[in-house]
Amino acid sequence: MKNNEPYYAVIFTSTKTIEDNGYNQMAIQMEELAQKQPGFLGIESARESVGITVSYWQSLEAIANWKNHADHTFAQHKGNKEWYTWYKVRICKVEREYEFFK
Amino acid sequence: MKNNEPYYAVIFTSTKTIEDNGYNQMAIQMEELAQKQPGFLGIESARESVGITVSYWQSLEAIANWKNHADHTFAQHKGNKEWYTWYKVRICKVEREYEFFK
Repeated sequence: MKNNEPYYAVIFTSTKTIEDNGYNQMAIQMEELAQKQPGFLGIESARESVGITVSYWQSLEAIANWKNHADHTFAQHKGNKEWYTWYKVRICKVEREYEFFK
Repeated sequence: MKNNEPYYAVIFTSTKTIEDNGYNQMAIQMEELAQKQPGFLGIESARESVGITVSYWQSLEAIANWKNHADHTFAQHKGNKEWYTWYKVRICKVEREYEFFK
């Protein structure tokens, strides 16, 4: 992910019900679909006791468009009904960043 | 975590070397220490192929103070030398949030 302009992060933290109920398949599908959206910059995901998915976007408009994408709306509805016991969404502006690698 | 004021998130994403080398103990220690810092609001962590730790803070000053805390500086140094093959730190302003629970 390369980006020198100001950009945004959506931090999605969640806890799940025990049953899979099609969750994993939908999660993969949504990640693939997100990558095709205008303004998408990147996504990172990990789950232990809590799940954290951070997606990165060029603008608030791109985030709003992705939130309202029909397939994503359907997934969100299933999420509320079947998969999540709790979640929190935070829309953030990335103010500064630095990176390390060897 | 309750907070109605504007606040900040530090998104720390990383990949690790295979060996533990004291990493897990240090991670627990640093999480406990972070919680005692002025301006600390919360922390969430998960690791699969990538590790994501998001900590929440009242101000940029609180973030800077935590970054420069002596024990944390030592841990960062060990992290660069022994534990991480890559990491990225993003300092973000939380612009908007919403929550779901049942």
